[in-house]
Parts: sequence; C-alpha cells; structure tokens
Amino acid sequence: MSRIVVGVMGPGEGATDEETNLAYELGGLIAQEGWVLLTGGRRAGVMDAASRGAKAAQGTVVGILPGTDVTGMSAAVDIPIITGMQEARNNINVLSSRVLFFIGMNAGTASELALALKAGRPAILVHQPNDVVRGFGAMAFGGLEAVADAASAMQAARRMLAAAIE
Amino acid sequence: MSRIVVGVMGPGEGATDEETNLAYELGGLIAQEGWVLLTGGRRAGVMDAASRGAKAAQGTVVGILPGTDVTGMSAAVDIPIITGMQEARNNINVLSSRVLFFIGMNAGTASELALALKAGRPAILVHQPNDVVRGFGAMAFGGLEAVADAASAMQAARRMLAAAIE
Amino acid sequence: MSRIVVGVMGPGEGATDEETNLAYELGGLIAQEGWVLLTGGRRAGVMDAASRGAKAAQGTVVGILPGTDVTGMSAAVDIPIITGMQEARNNINVLSSRVLFFIGMNAGTASELALALKAGRPAILVHQPNDVVRGFGAMAFGGLEAVADAASAMQAARRMLAAAIE
Amino acid sequence: MSRIVVGVMGPGEGATDEETNLAYELGGLIAQEGWVLLTGGRRAGVMDAASRGAKAAQGTVVGILPGTDVTGMSAAVDIPIITGMQEARNNINVLSSRVLFFIGMNAGTASELALALKAGRPAILVHQPNDVVRGFGAMAFGGLEAVADAASAMQAARRMLAAAIE
Repeated sequence: MSRIVVGVMGPGEGATDEETNLAYELGGLIAQEGWVLLTGGRRAGVMDAASRGAKAAQGTVVGILPGTDVTGMSAAVDIPIITGMQEARNNINVLSSRVLFFIGMNAGTASELALALKAGRPAILVHQPNDVVRGFGAMAFGGLEAVADAASAMQAARRMLAAAIE
Repeated sequence: MSRIVVGVMGPGEGATDEETNLAYELGGLIAQEGWVLLTGGRRAGVMDAASRGAKAAQGTVVGILPGTDVTGMSAAVDIPIITGMQEARNNINVLSSRVLFFIGMNAGTASELALALKAGRPAILVHQPNDVVRGFGAMAFGGLEAVADAASAMQAARRMLAAAIE
Repeated sequence: MSRIVVGVMGPGEGATDEETNLAYELGGLIAQEGWVLLTGGRRAGVMDAASRGAKAAQGTVVGILPGTDVTGMSAAVDIPIITGMQEARNNINVLSSRVLFFIGMNAGTASELALALKAGRPAILVHQPNDVVRGFGAMAFGGLEAVADAASAMQAARRMLAAAIE
Repeated sequence: MSRIVVGVMGPGEGATDEETNLAYELGGLIAQEGWVLLTGGRRAGVMDAASRGAKAAQGTVVGILPGTDVTGMSAAVDIPIITGMQEARNNINVLSSRVLFFIGMNAGTASELALALKAGRPAILVHQPNDVVRGFGAMAFGGLEAVADAASAMQAARRMLAAAIE
C-alpha cells in the first residue's frame, strides 16, 4: 500500500503572516495523521511554512521543484522531485495529491486550484475570501469545500478520502 | 521575424452556441490580421470553432494537442503539436501566445487564464460574466482586459501588442 | 487536412561544418517538398542551419523552444512554440514529427532518437557513423534507416510516410 | 538536509530474469545504504524488481508514473508521483536522481541514459554489453562508469556522490 500524499498550495513570496501560520499548523496536523505532505518545494511562503510544520512533527515532505536543480528549495523538504518544467509542474502537484488544501490565493495558486477541479481532485479552501469560494465553486463538480481553520480542513480531508475509497 | 501567435482559449464539449459563434468570428478576424491562431487543438467547442473561423479566412492554425497522437483533432488545424502531456500542455498554450483571448469559462480554461496571469501574458476576457472579470482581475498586474465583442477584442490585442513592443 | 510536419534533430553548439551544411541542404529540400520543418528552435548548429535552409526555400519553420521565452531563438523560425520545459520538450519534438531526420550525435540528440524509437516514429540517420547506426539499430522495431546524403534522406522519408498512410 | 535520491532505470515488460534479479539486489542495497530509490513506478521489469528489493529492506520508494492515475503502479511504491506526461516524465526521473543506475537497455532506457548525460547526472551502467558502454561512453563527459555487479555499482555511486559534494 502506497502512502497517502496530500498537497498544500498557496502563494510563495507574497504570502501573509496569517497564511504562513495557518500553513505551518496544517503541515503539522498532516504529519501527525501519517500523511505525506507535497508542496511546490520552494523556500517561500505557504509551501515553506507547511513543510516546516510537517518536518517539526516528524513528517515526510515531498517538494515538486520548478527548476532543473535544488536552488531555492525549502530546507524542510525530504524528497526533492526536480522537474525543470517551471509552472507546468503545477499539474504534477495536483495529480499526485489525493486531496489538496489551498491557503491564500494568487495566479499560480489559482492555476493549481483550476487544474485540481479539472482533474477531479478534492480541493479544500482554507480560510479563503468569499469571492474566491464563489468564483471557483461555480466550476466544481462536488469536489470543492470551504473551511475556516486547520482542524476543520483535516476533518474535511478525512471525509473526502473516505468517500473516495468507498 | 517570426509570426505573431495569439491564443483563443475556452471550453471544449461544454461550450454554448453563443461562445462558439463568437470564437468562429474572432478566429476569422485573427486570420485577416495576419496572425497565427493557437488553440488546444481538439475538435470541440471554442477551440474547434475558432480554428474553423481562421481556416475559412485562409489563416494558419496551430493546435497544441494533449494526447500522444492526433486523435480527436479539429479538422481545421494546419500544424498539430503533439505533447502527450494532457493538461500540463496548458502552460505551453499560454507561453506560446503573445496575447490570449478567453471565451467562456470552465476549470481547464481557468487554469489557462491563471497561468497567463502568472506568466505575464496579456489576457483578454471576451463577453465574460462580471464575477469572472472581478475574480481574476484581483490577481492580474495590469495585463487583464474585459471586452464585449470580437471587434473590441481585436482592438485591445493590437494595443497590448504595440505596448509590449515599445 | 493538416500539413506534414517533419523534424530535423542534431547537435546545437557542437555541430561540425559538415553537419550544418547537410542540415541546411535538407531544410531546403523539406521546404520544396511542401512539408513543415520542426526543430528544437535554437540559434545553434543543426537546428539553426536546417531552419535557415527551409526559410531560404520559402518553407514554414516551427521551433519547439526549451525556455520560457524566445531568447536564443533561430531567426529563421516562423512559429515559436514556447515550452518552458527544457529537455523534456524533446519528447514533443518527437511526437509532433511524422518522420525525424538525425544529423550528428550528442546526448540531447540521442535522447530524441531513443524517444522516437520508443514512440514508433520513423527515424532516418543521415551520414551517421557506423557504431551509432548499429547501437540504435538494435533498439528499433523496423522504423530506423541509415542514409548517406540529403537526397537519399528525402527518398526514405517519402517511402516511410507512404507506408504509414497505407 | 534532504535525503539522497538515486534512480534505477531499465526495461519494463521486456526485462530478462537476470536483469530483474540484479535490480532486486541493487534495490535492497540502496535501501540498506539509507538512500531513497526512485524508479519509473510501473509494475514491470527492472523498476518493479528494484522497488520490491528496496521495500523488502525497509527502504523508501518513489515512483514517477507516466499516466494520470496510479493504474499499473508497482505495489512496492511508497510515494507515487503522478505526472500524466508519458515519456516526457523520463527527464524528471533523471533530474531528480543524484546518481542513476542502468540495468538492461531498450529505447525508453536509452532516452533516460542520454538525458542523464545531457543533464550531467552520474550514470552507472550495471552489467551492460560492451557496445552499449562504448556507444554512450563517447557521449559522456566523465560522468559514465560501467560495472559488473550490484556491489561494484554501490561502490561507484558512493565515490561519485562524494566527488559531487567536494
């Protein structure tokens, strides 16, 4: 049985403190659950914070890197996957995750959310503004859920994974 | 001097008649302008209609196909580019286009719009609902414009290309 | 009916004069045949020479570029396809070509030849050393042919395309 | 500190018993060394055997899958990376591996070896025929080594990793 891999997606350099704090907390909960954390791998914003949170809780962290080497990688990544594909790697982030959490929003994150909806991967919007939830909600086919905090995000993910297995 | 390549993006199977009519008209105007039309290449919805419109006006049509062969290709594609990358090819659609037109909206199209904003490619929303314009407008850095019809879309594209060259 | 796209692959910076002369000649013959030339798009070696040859004969040249913009592109490319995928774009070169010509050999070119054999695309080795022909010959399933010059390469390509259509 | 990821590449369906036995042994040695094993992820030939060998020795196995889901995955994969890119994923196999071992040879494996030489990743040919060693040896810039068995392969890898760190 392969391990359960879940993704945490969100802004890099432009992330707010609130977003990185939430990502750190969620990364820790993911590790405690025994799941593998997957992120975009860079040492910036939401992906770095989630990776550090998972690492502090003895989790396993996979980073799907955009460049052709490990330049700029988060120090909390255990297993670097080097794609050399820049933003086209976003589709790998999405396909490889059984569930995806979205914290904060920018163009790169929106591309991952849209690709998740396209691929039918369950997406959990954590503490997102109402207009983001509404805008993407119209494009989802039952696989999108909005929650207020990290604990509720984990509950939603457990429920979605259980539903997918049945 | 290489030719000017512009993309038309939009839903495949789920496109409305209004959207395919608009795409056909815009494809024709793009061909008359001497630009090369680039689409996702499939025989469906907005990409097929734009390709047929360009073809009817003696234009050149490039189709960036998701599969590993030409199965399902629009009959109006002159030059098939076969990627075998499924949705990851959306980033190639975006990077290869000097300007992108968006007609209609679904998850795949939203991923292309988000990737265009991420890559700094000018994006023109043609006859889109207000909430799409607002939602993505918040993520753009000056490169997003909403227009009502095909003629205005061409005007906006000419202006954006001229600004990019200066 | 889409146009017939054929690829010319070979070393960039390390190409010899003999190889670039042969590529220039072959590019011209491809254009005269009415086929579209596809190359790796850069202003270097075999791909640049083939592109210039095709251009001088009023052909159409598609360049599948490795970077995220047109930096370093051959001036003879008509239609730049921008992948941002570095060497992973080699598989697109291969899949998009109905027949591939190989002039000269290095690691990048060898990856394209191997991917062509894997994908079942007919490959024509033009003026290659015997050990290259033997080494790759062992991996081909009938789709590999070695020829001595550009005219014989065109003959082989016409025959292979006719066989593929039957 | 991220973990050391090394790749084992070779034929899938066409692998010989000798090749899969060697791959199983090498997979076990990689796990005992504390390295992460990376393969093409499918339940076939060299990649499946290496993965089972690593798993039996309590190792961690990453599978870089060609499809858009886990269909056909080796049961010994811990962490599936789903690319949806078919053969273009071979470049990710190569870039993500600090050292690559090659057992057996066919077109897909040859593409990975060529891409490794192109990317400057050290490549170890394990029990390969002389003509493969000679053919690719001519394209390598110091990063290619041929060995006779699994124990010598590990020695070569340790030496190459040490040289890369210095």
